[in-house]
Order: sequence, then structure tokens, then C-alpha cells
Amino acid sequence: MIAYTPEAVHDFAPQSLDDVPPILADHSVTWLDIQGLGDEKLLRHVAELFKLHPLALEDAVNVPQRPKSEVYENHYLYITRMTMLREGASELDTEQVSIFIGRNYVLTLQEHCGDVFDPVRQRINAGIGAIRTSGPDYLAYALIDTIIDGYYPVLEQIGENLEALEEKALASASKSTLREIYATKRQLLNLRRAVWPQREAVSALIRDESPLITAPVRIFLRDCYDHTVQLIDVSETFRELCGNLLDLYMSSVGMRTNDVMKVLTIISSVFIPLTFLAGIYGMNFEHIPELHVRWAYPALLGVMAVIAVGMLYVFRSIGWLGEREREREPDGSG
Amino acid sequence: MIAYTPEAVHDFAPQSLDDVPPILADHSVTWLDIQGLGDEKLLRHVAELFKLHPLALEDAVNVPQRPKSEVYENHYLYITRMTMLREGASELDTEQVSIFIGRNYVLTLQEHCGDVFDPVRQRINAGIGAIRTSGPDYLAYALIDTIIDGYYPVLEQIGENLEALEEKALASASKSTLREIYATKRQLLNLRRAVWPQREAVSALIRDESPLITAPVRIFLRDCYDHTVQLIDVSETFRELCGNLLDLYMSSVGMRTNDVMKVLTIISSVFIPLTFLAGIYGMNFEHIPELHVRWAYPALLGVMAVIAVGMLYVFRSIGWLGEREREREPDGSG
Amino acid sequence: MIAYTPEAVHDFAPQSLDDVPPILADHSVTWLDIQGLGDEKLLRHVAELFKLHPLALEDAVNVPQRPKSEVYENHYLYITRMTMLREGASELDTEQVSIFIGRNYVLTLQEHCGDVFDPVRQRINAGIGAIRTSGPDYLAYALIDTIIDGYYPVLEQIGENLEALEEKALASASKSTLREIYATKRQLLNLRRAVWPQREAVSALIRDESPLITAPVRIFLRDCYDHTVQLIDVSETFRELCGNLLDLYMSSVGMRTNDVMKVLTIISSVFIPLTFLAGIYGMNFEHIPELHVRWAYPALLGVMAVIAVGMLYVFRSIGWLGEREREREPDGSG
Amino acid sequence: MIAYTPEAVHDFAPQSLDDVPPILADHSVTWLDIQGLGDEKLLRHVAELFKLHPLALEDAVNVPQRPKSEVYENHYLYITRMTMLREGASELDTEQVSIFIGRNYVLTLQEHCGDVFDPVRQRINAGIGAIRTSGPDYLAYALIDTIIDGYYPVLEQIGENLEALEEKALASASKSTLREIYATKRQLLNLRRAVWPQREAVSALIRDESPLITAPVRIFLRDCYDHTVQLIDVSETFRELCGNLLDLYMSSVGMRTNDVMKVLTIISSVFIPLTFLAGIYGMNFEHIPELHVRWAYPALLGVMAVIAVGMLYVFRSIGWLGEREREREPDGSG
Amino acid sequence: MIAYTPEAVHDFAPQSLDDVPPILADHSVTWLDIQGLGDEKLLRHVAELFKLHPLALEDAVNVPQRPKSEVYENHYLYITRMTMLREGASELDTEQVSIFIGRNYVLTLQEHCGDVFDPVRQRINAGIGAIRTSGPDYLAYALIDTIIDGYYPVLEQIGENLEALEEKALASASKSTLREIYATKRQLLNLRRAVWPQREAVSALIRDESPLITAPVRIFLRDCYDHTVQLIDVSETFRELCGNLLDLYMSSVGMRTNDVMKVLTIISSVFIPLTFLAGIYGMNFEHIPELHVRWAYPALLGVMAVIAVGMLYVFRSIGWLGEREREREPDGSG
Repeated sequence: MIAYTPEAVHDFAPQSLDDVPPILADHSVTWLDIQGLGDEKLLRHVAELFKLHPLALEDAVNVPQRPKSEVYENHYLYITRMTMLREGASELDTEQVSIFIGRNYVLTLQEHCGDVFDPVRQRINAGIGAIRTSGPDYLAYALIDTIIDGYYPVLEQIGENLEALEEKALASASKSTLREIYATKRQLLNLRRAVWPQREAVSALIRDESPLITAPVRIFLRDCYDHTVQLIDVSETFRELCGNLLDLYMSSVGMRTNDVMKVLTIISSVFIPLTFLAGIYGMNFEHIPELHVRWAYPALLGVMAVIAVGMLYVFRSIGWLGEREREREPDGSG
Repeated sequence: MIAYTPEAVHDFAPQSLDDVPPILADHSVTWLDIQGLGDEKLLRHVAELFKLHPLALEDAVNVPQRPKSEVYENHYLYITRMTMLREGASELDTEQVSIFIGRNYVLTLQEHCGDVFDPVRQRINAGIGAIRTSGPDYLAYALIDTIIDGYYPVLEQIGENLEALEEKALASASKSTLREIYATKRQLLNLRRAVWPQREAVSALIRDESPLITAPVRIFLRDCYDHTVQLIDVSETFRELCGNLLDLYMSSVGMRTNDVMKVLTIISSVFIPLTFLAGIYGMNFEHIPELHVRWAYPALLGVMAVIAVGMLYVFRSIGWLGEREREREPDGSG
Repeated sequence: MIAYTPEAVHDFAPQSLDDVPPILADHSVTWLDIQGLGDEKLLRHVAELFKLHPLALEDAVNVPQRPKSEVYENHYLYITRMTMLREGASELDTEQVSIFIGRNYVLTLQEHCGDVFDPVRQRINAGIGAIRTSGPDYLAYALIDTIIDGYYPVLEQIGENLEALEEKALASASKSTLREIYATKRQLLNLRRAVWPQREAVSALIRDESPLITAPVRIFLRDCYDHTVQLIDVSETFRELCGNLLDLYMSSVGMRTNDVMKVLTIISSVFIPLTFLAGIYGMNFEHIPELHVRWAYPALLGVMAVIAVGMLYVFRSIGWLGEREREREPDGSG
Repeated sequence: MIAYTPEAVHDFAPQSLDDVPPILADHSVTWLDIQGLGDEKLLRHVAELFKLHPLALEDAVNVPQRPKSEVYENHYLYITRMTMLREGASELDTEQVSIFIGRNYVLTLQEHCGDVFDPVRQRINAGIGAIRTSGPDYLAYALIDTIIDGYYPVLEQIGENLEALEEKALASASKSTLREIYATKRQLLNLRRAVWPQREAVSALIRDESPLITAPVRIFLRDCYDHTVQLIDVSETFRELCGNLLDLYMSSVGMRTNDVMKVLTIISSVFIPLTFLAGIYGMNFEHIPELHVRWAYPALLGVMAVIAVGMLYVFRSIGWLGEREREREPDGSG
Repeated sequence: MIAYTPEAVHDFAPQSLDDVPPILADHSVTWLDIQGLGDEKLLRHVAELFKLHPLALEDAVNVPQRPKSEVYENHYLYITRMTMLREGASELDTEQVSIFIGRNYVLTLQEHCGDVFDPVRQRINAGIGAIRTSGPDYLAYALIDTIIDGYYPVLEQIGENLEALEEKALASASKSTLREIYATKRQLLNLRRAVWPQREAVSALIRDESPLITAPVRIFLRDCYDHTVQLIDVSETFRELCGNLLDLYMSSVGMRTNDVMKVLTIISSVFIPLTFLAGIYGMNFEHIPELHVRWAYPALLGVMAVIAVGMLYVFRSIGWLGEREREREPDGSG
């Protein structure tokens, strides 16, 4: 838990919460970042200190909440979900972050420990940009912006997954592809559930006539709003592409079945009549005149060859054989 | 039928309705809970006592109604549907609950007997939270909140069902899976019909300028509203996943057909030409020179082996055989 | 054509329209019900008598119109569609009903003859409820309510059809099922076209500031509005279920094809190699050593049995055989 | 190009546009109908004469425009698309019509020559209805109404096509059916694009506070509006039915494949084991005891018959054979 | 980088930005076109010169942004995406263009170098139309109009692609068709993402009460707005057609599988029973009376012919054979 103030930066790691009030009084902006929601007593103490509305605290602590922003008497509550790209994770990881914006403080509650807010902390320490000369509303904007920006690499990764899946769906028909498509679908649905309400939440921050958010920061928040809309646009596009992937996969399977059938049909159609002919002359009738003819055997072989070639010619002419051959090559290599 | 009042809690099990007026007069908040809608005379008597609008009573008694909230002259009517998780039930059980909110009373009508409101009753008896010091509007909020919270375990169960069904759809193609998918779809549609209008109903409670609902309770109801929206979000996500399950199932069936076809094709393609060759030398022509050659038989067997191995090699090279083998293993174990 | 008035009920079967004005003058509410739109002269006469707007009359006479409600100078026009359950009818029967609401009269025009309004007539005659002591707006409400209630049994029937169709889609793959699913879909689309605009129409009745509709009746109409919304909810649910039925049917067909293929594949895979073996020893080569071995024949039969059993074991182990067996039972009985 | 005026009708075929101003001055309403957009000079002259806004003229001349209605300083521009049923046309023919409504004139521009407005012209000449005693706004209404009414026969035809296609999709699986379904889909999409914006355009005409449209004509336009909504309703219903047709077709194809498979499986399953048996006794082993038994041959034939009948019995009992038979009849006749 | 002014046209290729202020002061309208976003220093200098809001500059430089229009204190920022048809490109190429509209200047930033604005430049040089006598808002309109018009040829090309793909989907079942359908789908989704927000952006330009946009130009922008709506309409229609193409393709594949199956079934059904018959008389039983009958062999051949012809007749009568024949012709030629 770290606290910061504007003009000069002071990092505090308060042992007990009793240290907080003087810090609050001394500095124009204080940021208290609480990671992990386990310590109930501490949270209740904090709530008292900052005079948080009981419902606001409840919403911040009970996860998962729907992203939203709500005005209370003394403070603003902005609940959002952040996401992080984890190595090899098939599920989308989202985590609830609650931001309380007060007159001279920002209080953030994260579900788990993490260092997503490090860039903001660095900007404060380095004094880059307007962050140190602005109020707590600008700090809140910086935090929200950081969270929203965290979605872009996730979306990019999903986009790459989708392209890889498209190739897979066309090339092979394994069950794992099916499973991956479905998992991506679920990921996108979860993403959507996390992103959609953020648009409303940011929009509410902009529209609400609260004195806690100043006009210049509203312009910056408008930028955040545009980003959430863009996120939604992209994720909707992905969702539709993903829906089509299942159709693509099914078409691909259907076509493959078709190919298999063609092979079976061609081989059967060529050999079954020939086998029948061989069967004819394998019969033990006493009086089959052909059996005694000297050139009958080679003649029959010739007839069989003609039938086989004729069959193949017919199949080629209706496009089955050629097509299969053409198909086989990319299939074998892919 | 039980009645309660705030400062001190009194449980009444009134024998006749004539006992109610003095209770109403004595206590600041009275809650009358009627379970079962069978006794028409009683209901009419109650309606007279509380001066309920005839249409309001009609709506409360005629089930099923669409969840809604309506302002009448002397009271507020909030109709909702609650759900309960029943063991082994494939259908979603929903039950209509009507809540009449008056100046100093709350009147609830349940379709069937049940004890969903027990937690609220306990909070009243124990005097936990603000429930005893607040008016009937807070009591109504507590009841509505309890009903809405009842949907969460149901949704969780459906979510688990969906995951199990996904596995089933991929692993086996039995009709029962199909039936379950369709049943879940129907469940979700029913759930949706129960939940969607509750959002509007709660929203109406918040917006309406009725003096029966006080401002602090409106803030609590806003929380209820957020919960219904979250319920809707989740159920919509489930509905989409469920819709995709059918596609997944069909893809899975298609792929399975494909596998079956491949087995048939491979076996046929290998043996049909060989059988034809055997048929050739089973013919009874007098003059087949090969028949008299000593090493002809082993030579033919060798040729056959070469053909068979060649066929298998071709199938492997176009990816059919390997794939099938790979498929077979998880299939056999799953 | 019957006319009624409030305090005392008088049934008139006016021979000519000249009888109507004195009836209008004498009674506080008059209801003129015209069944069938054939007699143009009569309709024009009526329009003059009641000073109907030419466009209003045109809308009432030209069928089909979209349900709507419109305010004119002297009267209100409410056009709606009623439906009736007819025995063995596959198509949904809807019929246009126009209700003109004036200061002291209600004028209804029905497309065909029928007795849907009989319950209202009985209530008037019996003097049950508020109908006789209220104005023409209440009478109009009663009529609209009767029409809307007429949709419930239709929806119930469709719901039962859907359940039966679900069973059929899973059990058998006849074309008639396909036809029925499509017919139900069409029915639901028609129903939707009839019901959706009624919501708007009733809503317009409630919102419009016309003095012809009094405030208490507006509360009753709100009830009608809730019913139309409920109708829409249910029919949308049905529409989605029906859309899924087609998918269900296709999955069912796909699975059936799969089953057929399995039977073919199992039988072919077992017998084709055996037939090949038999073909080998049916060859007429002079030098096949096995042919002269005494125990060769029973040994070959044994080998064949081993191959067959081995094949069946493989098929069972990959789940094809067992599944088919399990499938066959419910299939044979269903 | 014809011009008309109210009290007495005068048909003008003005040689040059210089004739127009005096006509305009003399008559209360003048209608100038220009067919074909080729003559640019003429159009520019007309624009000057009527003081048309350059953008308005541009919109009217550049086809295709989206149907819309726009207010300009001196006039109203209503752009719409009309449709005409052409014999044997697979594509939907739509044509842009621009209607300029001024203080005392109506100016129509049609893309191609045609006589769709003949009924209106006849009504003017005959003096039927209010057309001659009303202003240019009523004339515009009459024209718009004529255009909208022109969509009804087109929709009817499409409805008939859909029913025929449904039968075809169920009965046969030719590619032409597929092509027709897709063509109808495209037709409906084009229709939709033509009809949807007309609703807005008419609605804008009604809402706009322009003095060029008088109140009574607004009531008539409300009727037009209802008609466009009805057109949209019907075309949406058709679009959904058409979308289902593709599914229906696919189900039908799937079922047909199923039937074909059943025939193959039944025939194969019956004869392959029998052929195997025959192969057994066609082997040339020296020591096959059965070969020397006198009654072995008829006995084997008997066994074969038993196997064949047994197989058929099994297939019938699992419903394959009976179903196929039942299917075959309507299939053969249809 | 070129600058222009109204009355007389001056082309500047300013070496350094210090040359710009005097040009700005001298002329009523100046247009500065910056191509490529690489030179950060230059951009920051420009921003200072024109007093651009830092967020505005950030939005213009960070690509991709969602098209939007935003009001700032001193200027208007309109961000849009333009598209260009590139030879042989399968992906849709879009490029961000930012237009800053100030009191007496227009500043455009393009992502890459290009000459899309050449037509506007020519109109300025030639002094055609109102462009030179109007303010910077009209110039901005001309630029926006040029960008929007650039979408039409792209849409046309996609429309042609769709028609070609429809033919391909019906005629052949190659994987490349599938890939093309999916690529077109993606193209349309990208197009949509580029076009949809432009509608809002143009609409915001029209609605905003900024003094930078004059009333006459608002009328021209209304025209732009109509064009974006039309673009959206067309692209939505294409999107739906494209979605149906996948279904069409699948139906086509399904039908093809059906055809393959029919060929296999017919050939198998004809020859398998005949082969069985031949097998019967190939058995080596000692006592098969038929073998010794003189005319048995020709008689059997006759029976076989009768069976074969009978089979073919049955297949023709149930419509399989004829249909296949009919199918084969267009298939062979297509």
C-alpha cells in the first residue's frame, strides 16, 4: 500500500491506517492502492476513514460486479474490469478494480496483487505530463486509461488466434480445432461482458454533473470513451468472424467427407463391375463356351482394361477425379 | 401467515383477518405474507382491508403475470418471479411473488408455500442491519434483493451444465445430448423471460416519484437494478454459448461421419482391388498361362501385399490414416 | 346488428339505419356491431350518421390493415386483429376488427360473422362488473381485452405443437416433420405480425390525451398493454425454439446418417477381408500348397472367425458398436 | 411533359420552358412531369425557373439516391423509389422518382419513361375525390400513395414464389432451386433497401413544420406511413421465411443423402455376407467335407435365404426399411 | 506539403514552418496537407503554430482511431478513414485522415503519401464551383465528400466479387472458394467498422453548434450524411448476402455428396447382387444340378440382365438416375 502526493512525491507504506489522516491533510492528492480484498477489518476501517457509503464498499468488495460508475455523496465510485495477457492461458483473465474518487484522494481496490498501475506510478514519480499538477480526477483518468489500454494486446492476440484458427479449420478437421474455436468464442463473450458496460461507465463519468470531475478531465475521459467504443467495435467484429469460423469448419468437414466419398465411389465403381466379370467366368457351369476359347482370357483382360479406363474417363469428365487430384496436393502438404 | 413490527418483533399467526387492523395501527411496519393463492374469500377480505385496487389484486392472483411494478393510489404493486433450484429438475421452476408496498405495511403473495423469505425473517428477528429501523420500502427492497439473489445459483448450475454439455457434444453423438442441449436452451429462454422484465420493474420502482419509496432505499434499489442487469448479461452469454453448442454438436457429428467414411473407404480401397485380382485367377478359362507357373501363387501374394501397402501409404500421405489413428485414441478413452 | 344501452339493456335489430339516431339520443352508451364488410351502401350511411372521417372508414373496410389506433376529431379508431382457434387448421386465422369509440357510442366492424363478443354481450345483459355503469371507453376496453385474451389459447396450442415437433424431430426424419416445422414457423411469423403492432396501438390509446378515454379506463388499458407484451414475449420465445427445431432436425438427420454409415462400415469391414481370403483359395493356380493340407479348411475358418471377432472388438472399443446398439433400442421403440 | 391546373384541367405539352411561367401564374396548382434524366440543359433551365437548390437538383439527377425527404427554402424534395412488376424478370426493378413540392406546383422527375402516374392523371381529369380542390401537397400525397401501392403486387408475387420454392426445396434437390432461393433473398434485400428509408421519408414529411404541407394532408400521409410500415412488416416476414428456406433445403438434402445411404447399406448388408458364404464354398481346398454332402447345396441356399430375410427383418424393425418405403411413394409421385 | 488561398491560388512548398504564419495572415483560407506521420518534431511544431489541443494531435497521430468529430476550443477535429482500390489486393486498404478545421485554415494529416485529394486541388486551381469563394468549412466538406465517394468503387468491386463467388459456390466445391468467401466477409466487416462511425462523425459535424461550420455548408454535409447512410445500407446488404454464401456453399457441398452417394449406391446395388449370383455357381459343391444343364449359363446371364435392368428402372422411377443425369450436364460444363 503506497500513498503519493503531488508537489513532491512521498511514498508511504503505512503500517496502520492511523497514519493516513495526516497524510491526507498535508497533500493535495493522495492515492491509496489496496491490493487483495481479503482483509475485511482493514477495509471497514478504510471505509470509515474516507466516509464511503456502505453499498459502495459492498460493491467494491463483492466480485464480480458489472463495470459501472456511481455518484455518492462524498465520492465517486468507478468499478471496472481489467484484463491481462497471461502466457499459455486459454481463458481470459479479468480482474475487478474499484476506483473511489474523492475531493483530495483516489482509492483503488484490486482483486489480486499486480503491477498494472506501475506506469502511472512512474509518471507520478517522474513528474511527466500533467499528472502531478492536476487533481485526483486526472489521476483517476490516468488509471482508467491504463486499464483500457490493457485490452488492446489481448484483442490483438485473439485476432492472431482467429487467423491461425481459420487456417486450421480449412486444413484439418481435428476435434482440437473445434474446441479452440469454441474456447475463443467463449473468450470473446467474456471480453464483451467486461467491455460493454465500461462504455456506459465512462460515459456516465463524463455526463454526471459531479464537481469531483473537472471539465478538462472530461475531455480526456471522452478519449477513454472513444477507446472503449473502438474496443467494442473490434471485439464485435471478432465475434462475428468467430461465429463464421464454426460454419467454415463445418463446410470444411462437409467437403472432406465429399472427398472421401469420391475416393470410395471411384474405386468401388471401377472394381465392382470387373469383379463381377471375373465372377462370371469363375462359375462352374459345364457349358460355358467362352471358357474353351484360346484367346478368351487375354480378350477379357482387355475388356476389363477398357471398362476401367472408360470409368476413369467418365469420372474425370464430370470433374471428380481432377478435382480430387488438385485437392490432394495442398491437403497432403498442409 | 406471519406479521412483524419494527421496534420489537411480534409474530402473529392471525386466526381471522379481523385481528389485523389493530396490529397495523400499533406497529410502524407490518409484513403480511400469504402463501398459496387458493383461498379467494380471504384474498378479497385482505384487499378490502388494505384498500387494494381490484386490478392490482387480479394481477397478483392471476398467474403467470409478467414481472412489473405499478403505482396505485394507496400502494405500490411489484410483481416478480422467483426461481428455485430443485434437485434433478430439468425444467426451470419459477413462481410468481407479488409485493404490495403501503404506507405502513408490506403484503406479499406467493404462488406456493415455501421458505425463500426466511433469511429476511431472520434478519428482522435478529435486528441485523437497517431493516428494523427503516420503513416498509426497505423491507420490500430486502425481499426483492433476496429474490434476485436466488437466480445466481440457478445461473451457476446452468453454466456448469453448459460446460458438461460442451464436453459431451464433442465426445459422443447420442441423442440424449441433443435433447439436453435443447432443454437447456428452453430453460435459458424461460429464464430470460423471467429476468428481462424485472430490470424494467426495478427501474420503474427507482424512477417513479411515489412517496412510498424513500431516497435512501432508491440507492439500494439501484444495486438491485445492477444485479438484474448482470443476470441478464450472464444469461445472454449463456444463451449464445448454448446456440453454439448445437452447431458444435453438428460439427462433431459431421466429423464423426467423416471418420466412419474414412474407415470404410480405406478398408474397401485396400481389399476390393485385391479381391478382384483373386477373382481373376479364380476364373475357369482353359488357357490362363499364369495358372501353371510354379511361383505364380507366391508372386501374386507378393503383388497383393505391395498393392495393399502402397494403398495404405497413399492414405497416410494424404493424412487420412494418421489422423484417424490420432482421433481414435481420445475417442476410445472418452 | 344489435344495439345496447346502459341503465336498462335494450336489444335492437334495426331494420334500417333511420332507427339509430333516436336510440343514440335516448341511451348513454350504444354499441353497434356490424359483421361482414360487404354492404358498402350501409357502411357509407353509417359513416355519415356517426360523422366518421373518410380515411377512418377506408382503413376499417380495406383489409388487411396493420393494427393501430388513431385519433380523429369526433371519434377514436382502434383497428386490431383477432384470432380464433379452428379445428384442424394449419394456418393461423386472423380477422380484422375495427372499433370506433365516440362520445356515447361504440361501433365495431368485423370482417366475418362470429360470436367472439358474446362474453361481453352477456356481461352487459347480466350487469356484471362495471360495464353498465361506465362509458363507451370501458366497453371498448372490454372488447379489446376479449380480443387479446383470444390469443392465449392459440399460443398454448402452438406451444404444445412445438413440444410434439421436438419429439418428432428427434425420433424420425420424415419430410412431414420438416413441413410441420416450417408451417409452425410461418404461423409464428404471422402471429407476430398481428401482435406486435397491437402493443403500440394499446400504448397509443393510453398515451393520447383524448377526452374520449377517461383516466380509470386508462388504468385498465395498462393491463391490456401488459398482456400484449406478455403475448409478444411468449411468441418470441416460441419463435426461437422453432428456429432451433430446424437445427435439431438437421442434427438428428446427421446423426442418423452417421448410424447408417456405421452399420455399413461394420458389415463391410468384417466381410470384405474375409471374402478376399475366400477368394485367395478359390484361385485355380496349380501350385497352392495350402490346398492340399488336410486341416487347412478348418484352420482358415478359424482364422476368419478370429479376424471377424477382432474387427468387432476394435469397433466396440472405439465406441461404434456399443453406441449403435444403445441407439437401436429407443429407435426401434420410438 | 404535361402540366395541369385545378379548376379546369389544361393539358400542356410545352415546347420550350418559356411557356411555363404564365401557366404557373394562371393556375392554382401546376404539375410538371419530366421523364428521363438525360437532357441536362433542360433540367438546369427548370431548376432556375423553379429556383431549386443546386444540391436538390443534384440529388434528383444522380441515381441511385436513398429515399429521403428534405426541406429547402422554397420547396420540399421527396426522393423515393418505385417498383414495377415486369414479366419474367428475376431481378427487382426499382426506379428513382423525385417529387419537388412548391407553393403552387409539383415537379416530378422519373428515371425512365413510364405511365405509373396515369391513375392520378385520370383522377385529375375526371375530378374524382378531393384532388382538384386541394393544393399541391394533396397531389404529392396522391403520387406518393400511388408509388407505395405499387409495392403490394410485387410483395404478393414474392410471397407466391416463396411458397412454390418451399415445395421445391422439399421435393427435389436441384441446383436451380438453390439459385432461385438465393435470388429471392437478394430481391428481398433490395426491396428492403428501397422500402425502409421510405418510412423515414414519409415520417419526415409528416413531422416537418413546413407550411407547404397542410394539416389535412398530414392525416392522409399518416395513412401512407402506415402502408410503408406494413410493407416493411411483410417484407421482413418474407426475409425470415426465405432465410429458413435455405435451412429447409439443406435438411432436405441431408435427408435425401440419408435415404441413399440406407438403400446402399441395406443392399450391401444383405448381399455381402451371402457372397462371403458363396466364396467359402468356392474355395479349392481338397478336404472340405461339406462339398460332398448331397443336400449341402440346397441347405446352403436355405441358410442364405434365412440370413437375407433375417437381415431385412432387422432393418424393418429398426425402422429403416418401412420408412424408406413410405418415403419412396410421395417421392416418386412428387 | 502545399498551401492554398482563395482569391488567387498560391502553391507553397514551405521549407520550414516559419513561412506559414505570414501565409495564414495574408489569405482568407489556407490548406496545409501533411502526408506521413513520421516526423514528430514537425508535427509538434505545427500543433504549436495552430494551437491544437494536445489530445487532438495525439488522436490524429495514433492510428488507428475510430472515425469521429470533436469540437475543441479553437478548432474542429474530424478523423475519418479513407479507402482505396488497389490492384489485386485481397485485403481492404484503409488509411486514417485527420482534418483540422480552424477559423481560416484547414489542416489535413494523412497516414501515407497519396493523391486522393488531387480532384479537390484541381477544383481550387481551376476555381470551379463555390470552393474558392467559400470558407474553410466548405473546403473541409469537399475533402470529406471526396473521401466518402472513394468508397463507392470499393463497394462495387465487392458486389461483383459476391456475384462471382455465388457462381463459384454453386459450381465447384474447392477450398479456395471457401477461403474467398471468408476473406470477403472479413473485408465487409472491416469496411463496416470504417463506415459506421463516419455516419456519426458527419452527423456530429452537422448538429454541433460550432461557429466554424456555417449553415450553408451544413446543408452540403447533410448530403454527405445521406451518402454514408447509403454506404452502410449497401454494405449491410452485402454482409447478409455474404453470410448466405457460406450456407449456399454448404448446401452445394451437401448436394454434391448426395450425388456421389447416388453413383456409388446405383453401381453397388446393380453389381453386388449379380456378383453374389455368380458366386453361387462358382461354388464347388458336387451336387449342384443347375451346373449340368446345357442352357443354364445363358439363362443365368439373362436373369442377371433382367435384374440389372430392373434395378436401373427402380432407380429411375424414384428419380435418382434421371436427376443425376440432368445434374451431370451443367456440372460437366461448369
